[in-house]
Amino acid sequence: MDKDALLDYEYPDLDPLPSKIEAETIPPCDPTADDRLYHICITAISLVVMLILAILARRTKVGDRQTGLPGLLSPVNFLDHTQHKGLAVAVFGVLLCKLWGLIISPNPLPFITDTENKQNWVILGVFYYPALYYPLLACGTLHNKVGYVLGSLLSWTHFVVLVWQKIDCPKTPLIHKHYSLFSSLPQIACLAFLSFQYPLFLFKGLKGTEKNNVTEDLSSSYYKDYVKKMLKKKKPTKISTETPKLPQRIIDAMKSYIYTPEEAFRFPLKLAISGVVSFITLYQVGLLLISSVLPPLQTARLGVDEDVANLLASFKIMLSLDKREVVRIVVYYMWCVEVCYISAMTLSGFINLAMLMRSMVLHRSNLKGLYRGDIYNVYNCQRSIRASRPALVCWMGYTSFTAAHICIGMIVQTMVFFLCLLIAVFLIIIPVLHGQNLILFQILGSMWPFWLMILLAVLIQNVTGRFCFIRKTAGTRDLDNRGNLFLLTYLMFPVNVLIGVLLAVWRMIITALFNIVHMGRMDISLLNRNVEAFDPAYRCYAHYLKIEVSQSHPVMKAFCGMLLQSMDQEESNAAQRSRDAEEGIQLVDQEKKQRKVSSAKRARRHWQLLYTLVNNPSLVGTRKHFQRQTTESFLNGSLNRIAKEGSKKEATTKEAEAAAGN
Amino acid sequence: MDKDALLDYEYPDLDPLPSKIEAETIPPCDPTADDRLYHICITAISLVVMLILAILARRTKVGDRQTGLPGLLSPVNFLDHTQHKGLAVAVFGVLLCKLWGLIISPNPLPFITDTENKQNWVILGVFYYPALYYPLLACGTLHNKVGYVLGSLLSWTHFVVLVWQKIDCPKTPLIHKHYSLFSSLPQIACLAFLSFQYPLFLFKGLKGTEKNNVTEDLSSSYYKDYVKKMLKKKKPTKISTETPKLPQRIIDAMKSYIYTPEEAFRFPLKLAISGVVSFITLYQVGLLLISSVLPPLQTARLGVDEDVANLLASFKIMLSLDKREVVRIVVYYMWCVEVCYISAMTLSGFINLAMLMRSMVLHRSNLKGLYRGDIYNVYNCQRSIRASRPALVCWMGYTSFTAAHICIGMIVQTMVFFLCLLIAVFLIIIPVLHGQNLILFQILGSMWPFWLMILLAVLIQNVTGRFCFIRKTAGTRDLDNRGNLFLLTYLMFPVNVLIGVLLAVWRMIITALFNIVHMGRMDISLLNRNVEAFDPAYRCYAHYLKIEVSQSHPVMKAFCGMLLQSMDQEESNAAQRSRDAEEGIQLVDQEKKQRKVSSAKRARRHWQLLYTLVNNPSLVGTRKHFQRQTTESFLNGSLNRIAKEGSKKEATTKEAEAAAGN
Repeated sequence: MDKDALLDYEYPDLDPLPSKIEAETIPPCDPTADDRLYHICITAISLVVMLILAILARRTKVGDRQTGLPGLLSPVNFLDHTQHKGLAVAVFGVLLCKLWGLIISPNPLPFITDTENKQNWVILGVFYYPALYYPLLACGTLHNKVGYVLGSLLSWTHFVVLVWQKIDCPKTPLIHKHYSLFSSLPQIACLAFLSFQYPLFLFKGLKGTEKNNVTEDLSSSYYKDYVKKMLKKKKPTKISTETPKLPQRIIDAMKSYIYTPEEAFRFPLKLAISGVVSFITLYQVGLLLISSVLPPLQTARLGVDEDVANLLASFKIMLSLDKREVVRIVVYYMWCVEVCYISAMTLSGFINLAMLMRSMVLHRSNLKGLYRGDIYNVYNCQRSIRASRPALVCWMGYTSFTAAHICIGMIVQTMVFFLCLLIAVFLIIIPVLHGQNLILFQILGSMWPFWLMILLAVLIQNVTGRFCFIRKTAGTRDLDNRGNLFLLTYLMFPVNVLIGVLLAVWRMIITALFNIVHMGRMDISLLNRNVEAFDPAYRCYAHYLKIEVSQSHPVMKAFCGMLLQSMDQEESNAAQRSRDAEEGIQLVDQEKKQRKVSSAKRARRHWQLLYTLVNNPSLVGTRKHFQRQTTESFLNGSLNRIAKEGSKKEATTKEAEAAAGN
Repeated sequence: MDKDALLDYEYPDLDPLPSKIEAETIPPCDPTADDRLYHICITAISLVVMLILAILARRTKVGDRQTGLPGLLSPVNFLDHTQHKGLAVAVFGVLLCKLWGLIISPNPLPFITDTENKQNWVILGVFYYPALYYPLLACGTLHNKVGYVLGSLLSWTHFVVLVWQKIDCPKTPLIHKHYSLFSSLPQIACLAFLSFQYPLFLFKGLKGTEKNNVTEDLSSSYYKDYVKKMLKKKKPTKISTETPKLPQRIIDAMKSYIYTPEEAFRFPLKLAISGVVSFITLYQVGLLLISSVLPPLQTARLGVDEDVANLLASFKIMLSLDKREVVRIVVYYMWCVEVCYISAMTLSGFINLAMLMRSMVLHRSNLKGLYRGDIYNVYNCQRSIRASRPALVCWMGYTSFTAAHICIGMIVQTMVFFLCLLIAVFLIIIPVLHGQNLILFQILGSMWPFWLMILLAVLIQNVTGRFCFIRKTAGTRDLDNRGNLFLLTYLMFPVNVLIGVLLAVWRMIITALFNIVHMGRMDISLLNRNVEAFDPAYRCYAHYLKIEVSQSHPVMKAFCGMLLQSMDQEESNAAQRSRDAEEGIQLVDQEKKQRKVSSAKRARRHWQLLYTLVNNPSLVGTRKHFQRQTTESFLNGSLNRIAKEGSKKEATTKEAEAAAGN
């Protein structure tokens, strides 16, 4: 929005008959960096970069690491908490912006001018763009100076060309003159981040401060910190039997919408990507909603002239006798419509931002709950936390689905809020301000005896319920005056039916509003608790959590890290070390541990093992003897039961700690 | 619907141009039993009946019972499981029909012809009708032959006059000529039931087979049977670890919608009334929806002539060149609209019937669960089952609210289904049948590459998820080929966004449909499980259950009954016996029990007490020493904990039984 557009939002009563403005014609603009040429070049460059990386990877493989070509083919480890998340997040951001442009613009692929088969080009683009931006990810995989140099060059190229194009042609005829510019802002930001990040890596690499990244994940102190925090004795929290008061509850509810980072907890990479992708989607949808609807409305408003009066008169709508006055009124109404639309869009944007924050709070508590084994609290039923086909499919799609849900959610919200605001403005606010057409108030006013009756009936039932029919004796409450209670219930039956109608309408409004507001959130089900799984979005989220918890449990990772470390120390020269960390988790020789330890130490270890397993039942499935036996269901069942007995658990673990302390 | 109306539903292609039928004029009809006169008489008669009953009650009070005037003022005990429910149910049915007539008809009160101040007369009627039908309930309270005779006479009068009026004037100009007749059918049925029931009581009273009704509730064998069944050793149910297969699960789901009466469980009176009231509401709303919309549609369809072709031509809609053909098409389309409407209404009716059945199944399981102490399962959180002001208000209104919710639910459902059916018929069925205007199919067909891509993407992810990325080893499933999994996840990101959009639309449809279908049910919340209480209807139901369980727990009643019985046997002449059963519950002298019992017996009783309390934690609040102490929260907390430990409980009680058996 430039300044002119903002000025349009002054209340337009100074000049009720503006001279008709001509539609600004945007000359076709060919940027110096032609899109077609640029894409052909960059594709070729990317290919060359990938080839160089592949050669480098083969050479490195001959050396002391195993991550060669396979590492190049999986540049991002989605099951990692400690990885530097910036690279992956930025590339996904760029990809999302490109996808958005692909769907909006009439010629999806910049190097093809055939606009007839748009659909086929979109399909091609959907696979072309991930491949195009793949080297940006892959350059960071090898942790090699050459890789960083290539990554810097590539990201600079992308960044510079995009900025250059936007400076060359800031205005495009698509949707709104500045839409294209604003729409590419997140893409520019992501590319700028990449162009800054790669040189930084290179600098660190030159100074030698970069960590050994292959086992970085497992040797990171994060998992150890997590375990330490978990094993720390918790202060006994006071259990207050009193229910908190209303202001306190409101403050608590508000607080639960604000995400505050917590020590010893990091989001999995996939959730971090989802968060950023959701935010970019929010921005893009908001921009599209504003720039596709407002400019036409503004043009229409500025184009209103005295013909409107004639048109309205032909429909027998007489707003005023003076034609200038009619024009003024119509312009005013259109201005109101625009304000309603902007308000609805803004409201929807803010709601979705709040929901995004709330989701993050909930993600964290769900993940921590599942790590602890509170399966019942998270899922409201017992489930086995294991990899399965549907879980895997949902896990793969989760990030994309969040983006899509935010998009649809925002569109629906804006439409619904717009309608509600229109009704509110034209039936309530304008009539009240101008003191005419008070139809709604007249209807409600003429029904005053009805409202009075309803109010009295509710009051009577509440007051008698409080003072006549409930008796407090010695700490318990019991019914009193049963006879009169039954009589009142019988007499109030017809009135209560009328109250029930109001209640049913209120129920309809509140459920619709709740579902619309929470449309963009996948972490809660919009359905009743017994059929939660029928909500496809929530089902996907539940499955996603399964994979995340079963595959990247911090305690498991801490154990693996410790085992790898001890092996490193003991046999620092063995070839063992060069194994892939991922593979290592399962290949680690368990017998290494069984050295001479004093019985006291062994007992202590047993207690710690028990404590860990009780707190993290999802780990049981990965234990050694568990895999040997096939009595899976038995153990699983018994451990789930342990997890269930929430109140018992603490007592047991307290004892365990006491015993371990002795 | 008479036979003519049914014949209208033959497909109207035989006679595309029927001669215009004239609107049937219904002559104003004054029934021989003039409504005004009748109401004045019956009000007077009712007053007289009440006076006679009052005198009778005073006289009976002098005798050996305490239920005199107070009993007359509370003719129906809503907290009773064993009471003969017919009387109360029938009177509530009549009342509901009257309320319905009050709102629909232009002159609400039959003895007033002032149609201008309809609202005020409705308000008056809302209180007048309960009072008018009150004697019908009160006559049965005294369990006295005179009362039954009066009741018979009164119900006969009501019944005969109503039937007479309907025979005199079967057709009224209101809504549809037969609407008034059909609308009064439930009322006639209820009155017929009453006119049959009172003589039956009288007959039983003369033969002396009627039970002593004052303590009937507590001395009924029902509560004892309930306790016996509860104490019976349960057969160990086989816990199958396998999840049932799909057909079995579908059959189970179907079965859960069919209510089968169960031995040793009876519904509380209020739920029985709610069920019947809901059914009558369903009938009335269905009748209103059919008779207010269809006749005008039919009249319009039969009135279509060649003017329609001219009218359509003026809007530039050319259905055909032949005007007769145009008329035929328009008539056909209108017939389709009618069929859609009837289908939507029927569908909505059947859905609500199924929901009513399902509700009854759920009511039973909820009540039994709460008796057992499964508070967490029913409410999804811990709550104290105690009488409180909001609980009492909700309990009072529950029956009325169910009726109102069914009413609103059916209207919303019919509208939504009608719209959906219209879309389906005019966009899918008619185009397919006639092979033209296949717009929807053309759009979908032209998008085939898109659908193919989506399908392939879903397939690839599922197939690879099943066969490449999951490895089964020794009973556990784990991820395999992590590198390729991450690569695929990255490459599929843009496609998954598109799949996510479809998923979001599907989510919107399914949640809207679920909420609309379950709109009329108060026993489930339409909101997410964490905010269930914000659904006003569910909140009301939850509170209703609290009162019902805390006040009419079968085990508590069985105990009270046993105590009263033993007192009766021991001191059969004492004045104690004449106390009211309700009051007796708390006044019973606990010391009566403390007689010489052998220590074995005492131990056994302690076990049984423990067992009962463990199974019915809500009873703890009513125990003697509990009321003396004020350490309420402590005991409540500990017993709630007992209730929570579902798995532990059974073990404990098994032990208890074993110990008791020794």
